[in-house]
Amino acid sequence: MPTVPSRTLETVPNPHPDRDYEVSMTIPEFTCLCPITGQPDFATIRIRYVPDQRLVELKSLKLYAWSYRQEGAFHEDVTNRILNDLVEATQPRWAEVTGDFSVRGGIKTEVRTVYGKRPELS
Amino acid sequence: MPTVPSRTLETVPNPHPDRDYEVSMTIPEFTCLCPITGQPDFATIRIRYVPDQRLVELKSLKLYAWSYRQEGAFHEDVTNRILNDLVEATQPRWAEVTGDFSVRGGIKTEVRTVYGKRPELS
Amino acid sequence: MPTVPSRTLETVPNPHPDRDYEVSMTIPEFTCLCPITGQPDFATIRIRYVPDQRLVELKSLKLYAWSYRQEGAFHEDVTNRILNDLVEATQPRWAEVTGDFSVRGGIKTEVRTVYGKRPELS
Amino acid sequence: MPTVPSRTLETVPNPHPDRDYEVSMTIPEFTCLCPITGQPDFATIRIRYVPDQRLVELKSLKLYAWSYRQEGAFHEDVTNRILNDLVEATQPRWAEVTGDFSVRGGIKTEVRTVYGKRPELS
Amino acid sequence: MPTVPSRTLETVPNPHPDRDYEVSMTIPEFTCLCPITGQPDFATIRIRYVPDQRLVELKSLKLYAWSYRQEGAFHEDVTNRILNDLVEATQPRWAEVTGDFSVRGGIKTEVRTVYGKRPELS
Amino acid sequence: MPTVPSRTLETVPNPHPDRDYEVSMTIPEFTCLCPITGQPDFATIRIRYVPDQRLVELKSLKLYAWSYRQEGAFHEDVTNRILNDLVEATQPRWAEVTGDFSVRGGIKTEVRTVYGKRPELS
Amino acid sequence: MPTVPSRTLETVPNPHPDRDYEVSMTIPEFTCLCPITGQPDFATIRIRYVPDQRLVELKSLKLYAWSYRQEGAFHEDVTNRILNDLVEATQPRWAEVTGDFSVRGGIKTEVRTVYGKRPELS
Amino acid sequence: MPTVPSRTLETVPNPHPDRDYEVSMTIPEFTCLCPITGQPDFATIRIRYVPDQRLVELKSLKLYAWSYRQEGAFHEDVTNRILNDLVEATQPRWAEVTGDFSVRGGIKTEVRTVYGKRPELS
Amino acid sequence: MPTVPSRTLETVPNPHPDRDYEVSMTIPEFTCLCPITGQPDFATIRIRYVPDQRLVELKSLKLYAWSYRQEGAFHEDVTNRILNDLVEATQPRWAEVTGDFSVRGGIKTEVRTVYGKRPELS
Amino acid sequence: MPTVPSRTLETVPNPHPDRDYEVSMTIPEFTCLCPITGQPDFATIRIRYVPDQRLVELKSLKLYAWSYRQEGAFHEDVTNRILNDLVEATQPRWAEVTGDFSVRGGIKTEVRTVYGKRPELS
Repeated sequence: MPTVPSRTLETVPNPHPDRDYEVSMTIPEFTCLCPITGQPDFATIRIRYVPDQRLVELKSLKLYAWSYRQEGAFHEDVTNRILNDLVEATQPRWAEVTGDFSVRGGIKTEVRTVYGKRPELS
Repeated sequence: MPTVPSRTLETVPNPHPDRDYEVSMTIPEFTCLCPITGQPDFATIRIRYVPDQRLVELKSLKLYAWSYRQEGAFHEDVTNRILNDLVEATQPRWAEVTGDFSVRGGIKTEVRTVYGKRPELS
Repeated sequence: MPTVPSRTLETVPNPHPDRDYEVSMTIPEFTCLCPITGQPDFATIRIRYVPDQRLVELKSLKLYAWSYRQEGAFHEDVTNRILNDLVEATQPRWAEVTGDFSVRGGIKTEVRTVYGKRPELS
Repeated sequence: MPTVPSRTLETVPNPHPDRDYEVSMTIPEFTCLCPITGQPDFATIRIRYVPDQRLVELKSLKLYAWSYRQEGAFHEDVTNRILNDLVEATQPRWAEVTGDFSVRGGIKTEVRTVYGKRPELS
Repeated sequence: MPTVPSRTLETVPNPHPDRDYEVSMTIPEFTCLCPITGQPDFATIRIRYVPDQRLVELKSLKLYAWSYRQEGAFHEDVTNRILNDLVEATQPRWAEVTGDFSVRGGIKTEVRTVYGKRPELS
Repeated sequence: MPTVPSRTLETVPNPHPDRDYEVSMTIPEFTCLCPITGQPDFATIRIRYVPDQRLVELKSLKLYAWSYRQEGAFHEDVTNRILNDLVEATQPRWAEVTGDFSVRGGIKTEVRTVYGKRPELS
Repeated sequence: MPTVPSRTLETVPNPHPDRDYEVSMTIPEFTCLCPITGQPDFATIRIRYVPDQRLVELKSLKLYAWSYRQEGAFHEDVTNRILNDLVEATQPRWAEVTGDFSVRGGIKTEVRTVYGKRPELS
Repeated sequence: MPTVPSRTLETVPNPHPDRDYEVSMTIPEFTCLCPITGQPDFATIRIRYVPDQRLVELKSLKLYAWSYRQEGAFHEDVTNRILNDLVEATQPRWAEVTGDFSVRGGIKTEVRTVYGKRPELS
Repeated sequence: MPTVPSRTLETVPNPHPDRDYEVSMTIPEFTCLCPITGQPDFATIRIRYVPDQRLVELKSLKLYAWSYRQEGAFHEDVTNRILNDLVEATQPRWAEVTGDFSVRGGIKTEVRTVYGKRPELS
Repeated sequence: MPTVPSRTLETVPNPHPDRDYEVSMTIPEFTCLCPITGQPDFATIRIRYVPDQRLVELKSLKLYAWSYRQEGAFHEDVTNRILNDLVEATQPRWAEVTGDFSVRGGIKTEVRTVYGKRPELS
């Protein structure tokens, strides 16, 4: 049985740090486990951020998402933890993470959490 | 004939109370009765809230929605009562409930009601 | 607590019995109970039929759908039972019932069942 | 109070009677009255036909649809009567009329009726 | 020929007058006559309002819409008149009426008119 | 060969000049010519305005759009000229014209231009 | 005032005449004139054909569509005439032309006409 | 780390074995691993079948899908294996499995495989 | 300047050669050059086939599509050439290639070509 | 092998420099190369700007987009470079460039960058 990758977000330098701009990354292929029943949960994770000196490296983000595959995680908690890890790795000017989870018990849940004050991009 | 569950919203602790973030829960499977004719009404209920110390527990919300199954309820009233119960149970920083009801007499009705002042999530 | 109506499909005479034509009736507001857990199930029921001497009366169909509200019913069974009742009441030249049920356990189920051989309507 | 136009379908000669081809005309603005309650009903009427020697004249079709405005008509009946009038006026090689009626009692009804055997248009 | 109902909007008491909330009612089945040509016009009417002490009664709104069936009315005028009648009947804190009319002469017209200053619903 | 109509926008009195409200008119059937190559261009023109004392007359707007059929016009220029003509004819409190042009050279162009300061319609 | 191009469909050799295959070409930018009122009509023309020895040349098809700009043409007639010209120019194994015309008098018209027997493309 | 369930499809008796009817079950939450790179793959699995004496039990199907979570599987192979297991467990009159896999290398793959000859359901 | 890969379609053994089933592969990222003007063309290529002994290898298909990047190719020709290469590489029981090309001169072109007789997959 | 055009944005005078208005240009046909692997990347580029004295010339924009075809470019970098070139060429009052890139590694990336403060267009 394969092992999941370790949880590390790599970064690369921002080539345009003099300007506020926004990067959006959508991960429709996110899965973790329900911490109570152990059953699989599925979600689309959307990240938006205004970088400062560092950008998230794309391949590293793929591995980061993969690292949750065998881990128990509540909807509200995992969305905030992804935001925390993004902030720690890239120290962005602003960041938002949205977790859009599949129907459970006939109810669909979406969690949206934000770091910092969004620079006005007009 | 089965009995409907009692009307109680359980809560769990908010793992990130230091941050304003938003939780959305959509219940497409809501049904109650028309208080005048006794006929079934159907709706999609959408809840959005910014939690303080407590989160709504998902399974309990499913049972809560179920509890209206045999009860007469006007559109405008039931939407506000769900908001009141949500506020009483979780004491959120902000909350909104929308009831999107099926066509009756060729007319579609939607009711949206709000508690508190929404924290700026950028 | 209101009682559900008894299960009867009324009919009216077909004003054009000399011609094969098709009537489709879609009921997005169908709900019954899971026979194992007693929890509510939701479905959209679609009926298509080629009438012979009798048409389904619209208001009676509404009451018929309502009559399942407090009854336990498996997806595959209830769809076939609706077809049986339709056939018994109207003796159509052809009929089809489709039950499109809500997600349960992350899986969406649809059941389609047919009575008779469909006349060619070109 | 204005009077509705009389019910006449005008025709014009088919400029290409040597070929089987299909004309579709969609009337989203159809309204008549419920013959039981007198309340307004609304529908989209779709006509498809393979003309022989005569085509339906467009303005005349608009007036024809208008002529039902103050008349009581059951769904199944009015759809077949429109087909009958179309056939009488144009003597087509094939014709189909579909009446797509608005929700009544939480149920949506569509009636489709056909005249003749459709020529193969490949 | 049936007569159209008289133009009266009934109201019921607002069960939650202590709170600003919004009610939306969509009427896709609206028809009146062109005041110049006498030909039928069709529209979807959307009403949104923040009630004060009174709510619009649903069945009465259906009859109110029906009452325009035989009346000549310009697009811009009828939309504002519906707003005026709504305001007179319910004395809302805020109200908006939108008339979304069908294509005429290859042009689609929509009229939106507002009463009062919208309370902030966050 | 038929001649195009002269370029005149007729107006009618605003029946509700005491209130700020918005009229939207969408013309999906607009065509002019490329001033360089003489080839046909196609666009959807959307007009929104808050009338003061005069409304645009619908039939006149149809003829006005038609009047560009044989005329060379750059995308950015023609959109602004339509706004100028609308302002001159109706002296609105606010107006906006959007020209949504078809793909040329693999690129889709949309031009939006505005007159005056939009009254707050809540 | 520019002149419209002459009506000629150029062709190029079919590089794969040994095989039955289908080419579809959609022209959303078609306009002609109403032969009765002289007013502009708009349509989307869809061509599908199985070529034999010749293919329609793309630029020539653009000019061909343009050539109808100042010409009066009934819906049913112009669709068949385009098919006739296509057949004459390319002698295809099979061809179909569909004219999808804009709403006139509240009615939308589509004409579909076919040449030959469609080879089975599996 | 939780273990995945064993791969077993439970069945229940078909309550209407005297009739050919179709059951469709859609599983949007399917994930396995790439057998070459070990990276996660995601798919929507659609099952359609005409049951004979046995129906697939819903909860068991959820566990069955879950059982692929840690297993390497090629797109074409896993789709056929699911069909094989379905056939072995339920001995259906006809069955079809479709695997709709996420984009890999800019390419989207869908595999559809069928067992038996589909009974005519009119 | 990077060089494009050579044009080779690799294959892998079909793990289920005893069964007729269908594989669909959609490549939205296809670009070549216009052989007359040298300008870039863009298309979505859709491949469907029923494999015999060999399957197309996914990564090799990505490189194959890439190999057209600097090559002039007519729409009708390139679609047929892709089919020829697919047939040569995999010797399928049936295959279809569709090229859905971007708008040029206001016209959208789609080419669909087929090899062999499609096995009945019910 | 054809050469790509040189990277130059031509401009034409703004015919309405006295007014703030917005021009949007969407380029769905953008492709460059991954600077690490050399593989093709695809994107839709959206430009919005409020012109001052100069407009972007349409044909020149097409060639400009084409000029990236053989060049390595990171998502975040190329979007900002297009903005820089647009600003240098047209000196706009405000400008925004959005790069909407295709899925890579199961993740979709969009970059939005802005120049200047957007004039209020009401």
